[in-house]
Amino acid sequence: MKTLDAVLDRIDKDIDQSVERLFALLRIASVSTDPAFKDQCRIAAEHVAADLKSIGFEATVRPTAGHPVVVGKSNGVAGPRVLFYGHYDVQPVDPLNLWKTPPFEPRIETLPDGRKIIVARGACDDKGQAMTFIEACRAFKAVTGKLPLPITMMIEGEEECGSKNLFGFVRDNAAEFKLDLALVCDTAMWDQKTPAVTTSLRGLVYEDVKITCADRDLHSGVFGGAAQNPLRLLSQILGEMWDDKGRVTIPGFYQGVKDLPADIKADLKGLDLTAEKFLGPIGLKKPAGEQDRMLIEQITTRPTAEINGIIGGYTGEGAKTVIPGEASAKVSFRLVGEQNPENIRDAFRTFVRTRVPADCKVEFGNFGLAPPIQLSFDNPALTKARTVLGEEWGHKAVAVGAGGSIPIVADFKNVLGMDSLLVGFALDDDRVHSPNEKFDLKCYHKGIRSWARILDALSAS
Amino acid sequence: MKTLDAVLDRIDKDIDQSVERLFALLRIASVSTDPAFKDQCRIAAEHVAADLKSIGFEATVRPTAGHPVVVGKSNGVAGPRVLFYGHYDVQPVDPLNLWKTPPFEPRIETLPDGRKIIVARGACDDKGQAMTFIEACRAFKAVTGKLPLPITMMIEGEEECGSKNLFGFVRDNAAEFKLDLALVCDTAMWDQKTPAVTTSLRGLVYEDVKITCADRDLHSGVFGGAAQNPLRLLSQILGEMWDDKGRVTIPGFYQGVKDLPADIKADLKGLDLTAEKFLGPIGLKKPAGEQDRMLIEQITTRPTAEINGIIGGYTGEGAKTVIPGEASAKVSFRLVGEQNPENIRDAFRTFVRTRVPADCKVEFGNFGLAPPIQLSFDNPALTKARTVLGEEWGHKAVAVGAGGSIPIVADFKNVLGMDSLLVGFALDDDRVHSPNEKFDLKCYHKGIRSWARILDALSAS
Repeated sequence: MKTLDAVLDRIDKDIDQSVERLFALLRIASVSTDPAFKDQCRIAAEHVAADLKSIGFEATVRPTAGHPVVVGKSNGVAGPRVLFYGHYDVQPVDPLNLWKTPPFEPRIETLPDGRKIIVARGACDDKGQAMTFIEACRAFKAVTGKLPLPITMMIEGEEECGSKNLFGFVRDNAAEFKLDLALVCDTAMWDQKTPAVTTSLRGLVYEDVKITCADRDLHSGVFGGAAQNPLRLLSQILGEMWDDKGRVTIPGFYQGVKDLPADIKADLKGLDLTAEKFLGPIGLKKPAGEQDRMLIEQITTRPTAEINGIIGGYTGEGAKTVIPGEASAKVSFRLVGEQNPENIRDAFRTFVRTRVPADCKVEFGNFGLAPPIQLSFDNPALTKARTVLGEEWGHKAVAVGAGGSIPIVADFKNVLGMDSLLVGFALDDDRVHSPNEKFDLKCYHKGIRSWARILDALSAS
Repeated sequence: MKTLDAVLDRIDKDIDQSVERLFALLRIASVSTDPAFKDQCRIAAEHVAADLKSIGFEATVRPTAGHPVVVGKSNGVAGPRVLFYGHYDVQPVDPLNLWKTPPFEPRIETLPDGRKIIVARGACDDKGQAMTFIEACRAFKAVTGKLPLPITMMIEGEEECGSKNLFGFVRDNAAEFKLDLALVCDTAMWDQKTPAVTTSLRGLVYEDVKITCADRDLHSGVFGGAAQNPLRLLSQILGEMWDDKGRVTIPGFYQGVKDLPADIKADLKGLDLTAEKFLGPIGLKKPAGEQDRMLIEQITTRPTAEINGIIGGYTGEGAKTVIPGEASAKVSFRLVGEQNPENIRDAFRTFVRTRVPADCKVEFGNFGLAPPIQLSFDNPALTKARTVLGEEWGHKAVAVGAGGSIPIVADFKNVLGMDSLLVGFALDDDRVHSPNEKFDLKCYHKGIRSWARILDALSAS
């Protein structure tokens, strides 16, 4: 029996215990944003560290200004050195009354279509996903007495509140974490049958813009027609950010944006993501992005501009004939390829400034400057992972882009010079961040098997 | 001695008592919007009715669904029948801590420039202004034993909350109030030296527009680029309401808008209202209206479009990468000449609807549909009033337009078929609706004298 087959067999036989171990972690209410749960976060970190020790890691709970980071190291074997990243913290549970059972009392439920699901806060994001990797390690250890590669674990406790202390932690300890490849398990499958490797993450520029005209609110009966209105300026300026083909009009915006390789584009086309399938469930029909791009490109591999909020003037019931003195908007950009966040921020600010009259004032605030991440399509680890994922799931694994950002992955690249292989087993209906979060038992089980295959494939290099 | 001279002489000799009588009215806290002051409103109404009775009016306190209307009638003499309109209610006083002395304890203060002012809530708006007319009547009664014309008084108690019950009251009692001319004292002088007759009031269309795209709020990382964003639609649609010359682009918007007669336009030009004078105090420099119009036209005789409020998406501190499901705006239009409110509302709605994609939804609410008011420039009462105001103030009286609306005046025209002569003595620095509201003692005194002259002139016809 080959080692891998023995490991997979062990995983199958041990699945009930694997679920029990996940349940034990899910019972810890490690909500990171709420100070009331600070102790629970520490307990979760210690729980994870103890578990890692039990399978041969030298594990420590490392302090930060916020919640601690669990670091585990297992060396002493040959092969590429990998850094696994995951997080033990979870989202808040409100609104609590929408949960069918208490969020920190995990249970198995059988859906009408026969799927068995694990229900709890964190079942998927990210306790369940992180445990797929840990359980794969456990199976290797049980079968072979060691891990297949030199592995460093980094399980943090602040992902759900922006990983704000992790950036400094990684920078301060760059020598420890500068390895050959990062592995991340916090993304999704394409669908229930189709595994996916996320090869790009869009970057983010998030700006707050405030326009001030008069130094006070004005009565529109007195000043209407003569006083500049900041809501009119905001509407006009922000409304000009797109042309009638859905392209962003900010000069230089598309610099660094490249077309996909033909084969990857063909794969994406083959996924046949229709507007009906993607937009139908949210009540829409027509994609609003660049008209000459496929929907799947619009949401993953093309850059976007969005207005996330506007406020100004009177917004209560009924009428108030006011011309406000100021108005504000939140505007964000998703970046791809080699778009530079600082350049995009500057181009946006110039775009706005040149449209604000000299007697009015504009101020900006920045709440995000994350560069996009792109894994080279010919990265050998990517090729191996796609191959073995296809073997496990019986369906070709697709290389997809993710519309959102995982900021620490950008630091792995920019600070540590390390690519990340993002493989995850979440499904669209997992209700991540919402009440009744779940993780398919099949995704958990085959997720563990998938990581075993990937570790085996990587160790063969 | 001519009757008028005797009346003016009597006004001068009685001015201290006139101020005392105004103070008595100012001491009643008749705040109409706050139910806590309901009794005070009734007391104010009864106070006014008693005062009218004391000078020969047959006066009654007439109930409405809200605060009562004081109606006084004095007939039995020849001449044009006039309806005088004013209001005994006042604005709330908050923020109370900004008042130098209690708002309902009237006092006389001497300003550094020597002007004596009456300080109290309602000193100007509208108790002080309404009393100028009542005191003129009182002087006539004292000198001649009767009033110079058949006069009907209508002093309402809900002007500061939209006159909402007065419209029905006027309609229901049209026969009583359908007279020859309405006189209104609730407007302003041009400046401290220059009396003014307000010959036009801009109408108002006030719309609330809500655009709904997706049936929920979306994560911009997942849906950004594909899901239509209602803030983008609102910005684009509302931003298109003006061209680069400041003209409103809604088709048909300017239908019914005429140029002013050359002599009136020359008078307005002579007032030399500069941007520095008008916009400087609020921190602005450049008029934002139609570029080919004088500033004074932009604020009084030209129609406008304003965005009074926008809200949608995330508007708190920091960042939230949301694409909101819905966004709302308040948009209002000031109308002039023969612009029709219903047509403007419909044109606006069509303008918006044709720009909203088929898979999104738009809903409208209306909070105002007041037609503009325009007194004919050759109305004989206007000519007489301008002449005698010039005699009283030693300065030619100007015919100006008011930027705002007095909705009941539209009903006097449209329901009762009656023109209104709007003469008022407020000044720009009266702090109407604000803490430390005041009325110049000189404006009160010469206001009483002005009405005496106008009544005398009208009775001579």
